Amino acid sequence: MTETLTELKTLLAEVDDLGKAAAVLSWDQQANMPPGGAPARASQLATLSRLSHERFTSERVGHLLYDLSKETRDASYDDDTASLVRVLKRDYEKAVRLPSTFVAELAEASGLGTTAWAQARAANDWAAFQDHLKKMIELKQREAEYLGYHDKIYDALLDTYEPDMKTAQVAEIFDGVRRELVPLVRAISEHAERVDDSVVRRAYAPDKQWALAQEALRAIGYDFARGRMDRVPHPFCTTFSNHDVRVTNRVLPNFFNSAFYGALHEGGHALYEQGSPDKFERTGLGGGASLSVHESQSRLWENLVGRSRAFWEFFFPKFKKTFRKNAAEMDAEKMYRAVNKVQPSFIRIEADEVTYSLHIMLRFEAENLLLENKLKVSELPGWWDEAMSSYLGVVPPDVARGALQDIHWSMGSCGYFPTYALGSIFSAQLFEQAREQLGDLDEQFARGEFSPLREWLTANIYQHARKYTLNEIAMRVTGEPLQTRSYIAYLKSKYSEIYGL
Amino acid sequence: MTETLTELKTLLAEVDDLGKAAAVLSWDQQANMPPGGAPARASQLATLSRLSHERFTSERVGHLLYDLSKETRDASYDDDTASLVRVLKRDYEKAVRLPSTFVAELAEASGLGTTAWAQARAANDWAAFQDHLKKMIELKQREAEYLGYHDKIYDALLDTYEPDMKTAQVAEIFDGVRRELVPLVRAISEHAERVDDSVVRRAYAPDKQWALAQEALRAIGYDFARGRMDRVPHPFCTTFSNHDVRVTNRVLPNFFNSAFYGALHEGGHALYEQGSPDKFERTGLGGGASLSVHESQSRLWENLVGRSRAFWEFFFPKFKKTFRKNAAEMDAEKMYRAVNKVQPSFIRIEADEVTYSLHIMLRFEAENLLLENKLKVSELPGWWDEAMSSYLGVVPPDVARGALQDIHWSMGSCGYFPTYALGSIFSAQLFEQAREQLGDLDEQFARGEFSPLREWLTANIYQHARKYTLNEIAMRVTGEPLQTRSYIAYLKSKYSEIYGL
Repeated sequence: MTETLTELKTLLAEVDDLGKAAAVLSWDQQANMPPGGAPARASQLATLSRLSHERFTSERVGHLLYDLSKETRDASYDDDTASLVRVLKRDYEKAVRLPSTFVAELAEASGLGTTAWAQARAANDWAAFQDHLKKMIELKQREAEYLGYHDKIYDALLDTYEPDMKTAQVAEIFDGVRRELVPLVRAISEHAERVDDSVVRRAYAPDKQWALAQEALRAIGYDFARGRMDRVPHPFCTTFSNHDVRVTNRVLPNFFNSAFYGALHEGGHALYEQGSPDKFERTGLGGGASLSVHESQSRLWENLVGRSRAFWEFFFPKFKKTFRKNAAEMDAEKMYRAVNKVQPSFIRIEADEVTYSLHIMLRFEAENLLLENKLKVSELPGWWDEAMSSYLGVVPPDVARGALQDIHWSMGSCGYFPTYALGSIFSAQLFEQAREQLGDLDEQFARGEFSPLREWLTANIYQHARKYTLNEIAMRVTGEPLQTRSYIAYLKSKYSEIYGL
Repeated sequence: MTETLTELKTLLAEVDDLGKAAAVLSWDQQANMPPGGAPARASQLATLSRLSHERFTSERVGHLLYDLSKETRDASYDDDTASLVRVLKRDYEKAVRLPSTFVAELAEASGLGTTAWAQARAANDWAAFQDHLKKMIELKQREAEYLGYHDKIYDALLDTYEPDMKTAQVAEIFDGVRRELVPLVRAISEHAERVDDSVVRRAYAPDKQWALAQEALRAIGYDFARGRMDRVPHPFCTTFSNHDVRVTNRVLPNFFNSAFYGALHEGGHALYEQGSPDKFERTGLGGGASLSVHESQSRLWENLVGRSRAFWEFFFPKFKKTFRKNAAEMDAEKMYRAVNKVQPSFIRIEADEVTYSLHIMLRFEAENLLLENKLKVSELPGWWDEAMSSYLGVVPPDVARGALQDIHWSMGSCGYFPTYALGSIFSAQLFEQAREQLGDLDEQFARGEFSPLREWLTANIYQHARKYTLNEIAMRVTGEPLQTRSYIAYLKSKYSEIYGL
């Protein structure tokens, strides 16, 4: 086996290097690139992804994976080599199902689609985007046919972002959550005045915001010797190796939450990636298990930690030191309440912790309807307004703040949205378990001690990188598959207390 | 021919994309990368350069170049396609001569060598570096044998940096220059007190230095919409496409010249790259003709323009506005004199315009002696001190400021140094021609008008990218091959006037 494995690892290392190189080029594109650089950068990225796809889907890689899969048949499921072969074989089988002509067609439609989307959104003009979306839905339907599925067409696409997750499980989870959240949002809306968040909407000097965000990142254990934070229009986290994991962020001069919680959110992703072990580097098994598990970490550090009362007991003195004027007449408790204000709004990315998942559910339903040809693209804006009204009690004033707000569909990311909500849901399940095993987390947070939690997450999740799926991790860590009980209980208890319901 | 050419261009575009991707990764490594990122970055760069080399040296590329070379035999020398084939065939024939095992051996020795060099220099310990240099000289001797040469072994290596240039021509040029410069340096040294440069050695706020350097770059026509400037330990210019050409720079808080002339120097390289035409992008024919021609542009903008009296007539008010205190009791004339102070020193990269080439000549001689086994590595430090004494009248106090000062040999850059001096020499030849054709350049500079010169350089050099060699460009633009007359006349006249000789 040794020789086969060595050869496979050599080939995978090359594929991984090409992928990481592309990540550097993409990061640079967002964080640094002057406008003139765009066309050449597109070519460079296309070449890197084509070469990487070509080399990963080579027959040789297939043979080696097949041989090793036979040879590791009797190995333990947890065995590193068996896991490498299992996970990479899954990737391989997906990758080879898509003809390269189709991949190119999709890439082109995505390029045209995002440009059209940006213009349509700016012009508040659904008609200008409609044909692109129609084309994209057709392409995603074809992609699903290439990939194959048993039950729902959506299964095929969902699986590319969340391995082994099924549409039926997501639908059941979302139904349960929605049933509880819609009344909670309504009850909160009736007492909106009970939380005053005016403090976070004052003027905050950008440089000071940046420094405070860095301080928060350091506090939760993000290692700046193995990362950095740069400004971009749309924040993200990216990995060039487990020892070079970069967060990006943006600063709004009149809204404190943007940079601060942006840092904690991307920092959560980054802790996961920085916790991926050396042994999986350049094998394709490094990094995070899935988009949902990744999002569980960004949400956990942003919300379960960063929006906790205990966190503000620890952090308020630092906030006050940096923003003495804005902090006047404030205290930890008032900050805690301010950063947790719930406010049904039109825009997903501005949504609070309670309403966020409802935005996602609406998109999940729309995607299913569109892919199953049960809703026409032209009917989407109207459908959207009705769903918004029923879930959140608000109706967008225009389509730019409605069905046109997200970039995802224009670039072909279809089946991706659910992972945002699944991550939030899973974060509460994990956090409940951590509380049980780690004693009084609040007391630790209030003292600025985040390493017990981080080390627990590293031992239970980060060190396993891509070895397990979401449900496997849930079983291993909490003894049950993904469930909504903890999430609903967390939101109800936290927000009933804040709003005195 | 069309089909063959199209296929070749497709293959070359891929090779170019890989090279440019590597450039982005290298730039990031210098400008941004956190320390933890180093090992993975080395692997990524190795993979990119191996893939690029593999694909460029493929038999298919060779066949296509061979076929096209026959088909373009009767085309004009200036024809774009004929030039593409001629230049890329030259690159190809060099690339295939080096066995990939040798390339790997060289890369490894270079990696080990630079690390050893950095430690040896820090410890001022020649013995710790000696064996690495010996190994590297042996490797470069082998490389020269692979590449082939007729006259001197040095020819083979020189040709990789400066196509068609011969050691004999360089030796003749350097002899002529040295004969004139050594007495000039001596004469200046006897009147060192006649130029007071204390103004450039005061405290300068780094942020203001940066802003002023940007202003100087804008003034000469560097396009920030197609580039940017970032901080690095050792400044360089790098190209990701002709529309994304980045300069890097460093700031010394107590030495004005470092950031200011660093910007103009790298800016000169950048104007050349930004002036490369779209039609050569992703073909391998874009960019600069050779290292010497490139250096002629950095030196021209740094020295012939930026260290001219007329430049300071234009720029002094801006300097004064930014650094009011340091500018007190100064004027354009005093600044002109201060930035042109000549001071024989130990360190090449700190050398002034007059002594710089002498540092290079010494290295050129040392390289020849080492490669021809006429000087032992162990004897180099002693030889170095003698040469310094004879050329510059100073002897380094230690080997760290002597034979250990440059990184080049440790990384296998042998035959590279002469291009620095050839560039300086050529810059004067070009500038003399520009003066003849463009009227009163001084009057233009004093008004801040640099576009006539830049457009002249674009028309005569930049737009041709890699089509011609140094001597071909010299012939085309000035009617004679590279000559030293203009350079010597320029230095003698400028510095005799400044020092009242």
